[in-house]
Amino acid sequence: MQDRSKVVVVGAGFGGLAVARELGDDPGVEVTLIDGNNYHTFWPLLYQVATAGLDASDVCFPVRRIFRRQPGVRVVLGWVTGLDLDRREVTVDNDRTFAYDHLVLAAGTVNSSFGVPGVEEHTFPLKSADDALDLRTHLLAGFERAAAGRSPQGDLAVVIVGGGPTGVELAGSIRELVDKVLCREFPEIDLTHLPITLVELADRVLAPFHPKLSAAAAHALRLRGVTVELGVGVERVEPGTVVLGDGRRLAASTIVWAAGVTASPLARRAGVELGRGGRIVTSADLSLPGRPEVFAVGDIALPPGPPLPQVAQPAIQGGRHVAAQIRARLAGAPTRPFRYRDRGSMATIGRNSAVAEFPNGWRFHGVIGWVMWLVLHLVELIGFRNRASVLVNWVWNYLTYDRGARIILRHQVPPATTQLAWPGSRPASAPDGP
Amino acid sequence: MQDRSKVVVVGAGFGGLAVARELGDDPGVEVTLIDGNNYHTFWPLLYQVATAGLDASDVCFPVRRIFRRQPGVRVVLGWVTGLDLDRREVTVDNDRTFAYDHLVLAAGTVNSSFGVPGVEEHTFPLKSADDALDLRTHLLAGFERAAAGRSPQGDLAVVIVGGGPTGVELAGSIRELVDKVLCREFPEIDLTHLPITLVELADRVLAPFHPKLSAAAAHALRLRGVTVELGVGVERVEPGTVVLGDGRRLAASTIVWAAGVTASPLARRAGVELGRGGRIVTSADLSLPGRPEVFAVGDIALPPGPPLPQVAQPAIQGGRHVAAQIRARLAGAPTRPFRYRDRGSMATIGRNSAVAEFPNGWRFHGVIGWVMWLVLHLVELIGFRNRASVLVNWVWNYLTYDRGARIILRHQVPPATTQLAWPGSRPASAPDGP
Repeated sequence: MQDRSKVVVVGAGFGGLAVARELGDDPGVEVTLIDGNNYHTFWPLLYQVATAGLDASDVCFPVRRIFRRQPGVRVVLGWVTGLDLDRREVTVDNDRTFAYDHLVLAAGTVNSSFGVPGVEEHTFPLKSADDALDLRTHLLAGFERAAAGRSPQGDLAVVIVGGGPTGVELAGSIRELVDKVLCREFPEIDLTHLPITLVELADRVLAPFHPKLSAAAAHALRLRGVTVELGVGVERVEPGTVVLGDGRRLAASTIVWAAGVTASPLARRAGVELGRGGRIVTSADLSLPGRPEVFAVGDIALPPGPPLPQVAQPAIQGGRHVAAQIRARLAGAPTRPFRYRDRGSMATIGRNSAVAEFPNGWRFHGVIGWVMWLVLHLVELIGFRNRASVLVNWVWNYLTYDRGARIILRHQVPPATTQLAWPGSRPASAPDGP
Repeated sequence: MQDRSKVVVVGAGFGGLAVARELGDDPGVEVTLIDGNNYHTFWPLLYQVATAGLDASDVCFPVRRIFRRQPGVRVVLGWVTGLDLDRREVTVDNDRTFAYDHLVLAAGTVNSSFGVPGVEEHTFPLKSADDALDLRTHLLAGFERAAAGRSPQGDLAVVIVGGGPTGVELAGSIRELVDKVLCREFPEIDLTHLPITLVELADRVLAPFHPKLSAAAAHALRLRGVTVELGVGVERVEPGTVVLGDGRRLAASTIVWAAGVTASPLARRAGVELGRGGRIVTSADLSLPGRPEVFAVGDIALPPGPPLPQVAQPAIQGGRHVAAQIRARLAGAPTRPFRYRDRGSMATIGRNSAVAEFPNGWRFHGVIGWVMWLVLHLVELIGFRNRASVLVNWVWNYLTYDRGARIILRHQVPPATTQLAWPGSRPASAPDGP
């Protein structure tokens, strides 16, 4: 035990998990994996939790279970409150200190308002399972409120800011929830023309994709009844209103901010050189310049060369790479530069519609893209149980246009209460993310 | 539309659902179903949500979905704040009034502390999905806290007050969670002797069952390592301590109050004659004496004759009966007395162990009882999707000793926070039930 090299990994996202999994069976290494949640979030499917297609435990995986068979990995639940790269120590929750021989920073990103006024107060983020449950509750409770005659129908409008995969997938999924499920269950309200608007500053959605696929995605969204506003930014957000850069005002009871992210505050705390988006500048081997024992992987890292897409694959590949470099260093061998292998990108617009592109130039959209998306995401999901449960839900949803997780939790008003706290008002106590 | 008779049903539990389902296809009737949640709770499985075997959407069913194909049923989300039996009006959330020709009160029960001091402040109830999620979070966070060295191991002790089915099933399920799952995933702490105590005032658990089955259940619990304290009441509950009637003090970080229920406060509000447990006294046909247009079903009702068990079957049968009586009254026919047909009772102690008894005298315990329990509950669950999802989870849990829903939600502490709110402290804002 005493001879084992100590590796501390901060963050149980795709990057951190990959490092810990690779090193977990290595008898010469003791891994400590630190995360603020006791679960790993499969965030590519968070939008389905927000739109009631899946439940939280379908996309959240207990970290301790993942490493049950790897006793070389110690799991620590807590937030990193101190980072001393000179003394090689990480402090968790102010009072627990972990010394390391190698450190891997894999804390990812947090939502960024980019300084737009009103974003933090009046919009919903979609970065965590809690965010997704809050958004789901808000959406569903809004329909109930309208059914009770407590809000004019226009109040149900949805504005999503940000035309990346999250914004596109969420817009398509909310449209489907409204048109295929809720319109049949809320005879009290006319939902046929409920406005859903996607706002994107760039002149196309899904900017990292080929322009033809961006156009196909925007076309598919518009066909479904989503208004796609391109080339316009958001000036500010007021309660119930998004003010666009061109002065237009979009009324909406639900405003989702999916316009971008910035590196986790952990990057700043490290006291090292930061680049674009607050990311940690790394050498080609993903170690920090001048600190060969510290690595950064995933969305918190900014390696040299062309920017990497902020999706799961670069984080997973980066994590595996860092694990190999730590092994190399322990064996006294030189490290190697990280090379990202693009395995393609996908985004889904809704039932029977997705876009997919591959590095060899193959591009798909429509049904074929959708089937590919479905299979790939099922394969990528960790753990049989969740895979089977997700599959059951998906097949059921597809056949019946149903969304089973459509339950409004934690908004009970006891019968004796006279002052009514209506569901849908965002709870003041809900953690709003950093 | 104008000629349709108005039936208002308060409560979407087993009883209320049965009434609405029966009358929903009747062209002569317009049903308004009122509930404070937008979902029906299959409460016999709530303890599995509390112990991370199932997720909330596995046991909660959106009410609007249940009645999607019955447009004669209007679903109203809200709490009944007023009840005027003379004017035949129900008021919801203080401002929405529904007139009725027939009224069905099916609001069930709420937890009762029976006046024991400290119960409301220091114990967890298990009556709703929110309760189950709160308890799950508290339990899991307690283990994380112990793993972080923040609490002596004794702090993990669990005391469950109440030896009815809920208490017995919860005790067995927590024991299994600890012994089969958590002990493998928390190498930091020694969980082999974690005390779990079940306290019951009567001299046996599962009092409505045959004494032989009560003895078998207590024996099975003890074999598994649950301390069963019979014939002793709870004097009061202090923070972290249960004080028994004989003066003994049981230290526990988790105290669950499953000792009993009382009729919903709605019963009092009705201004009618109440009987034992605050229940509404009804005539033999389940209508209220002197008010033939008002019925009470399920646990809120106290019909003449021997007391009915407070489980799903009497509520379901009562609901169907009331629907038939309303139809009879609309046809000018006389009503009939309600006769409960006992179809048997079951309770599970854990993996491979349950007790079951049938009115013909058949009694089972052990593996056979357990298989019967499993099949029956699967059959009873409403809706294919949830049934399939529950089945997947059960098979997976059985084969792997796993609990997939083991995620601590809504307890994030943002990294920038210095004052640490540790998960597991019960959120002050959580609704604690009436």
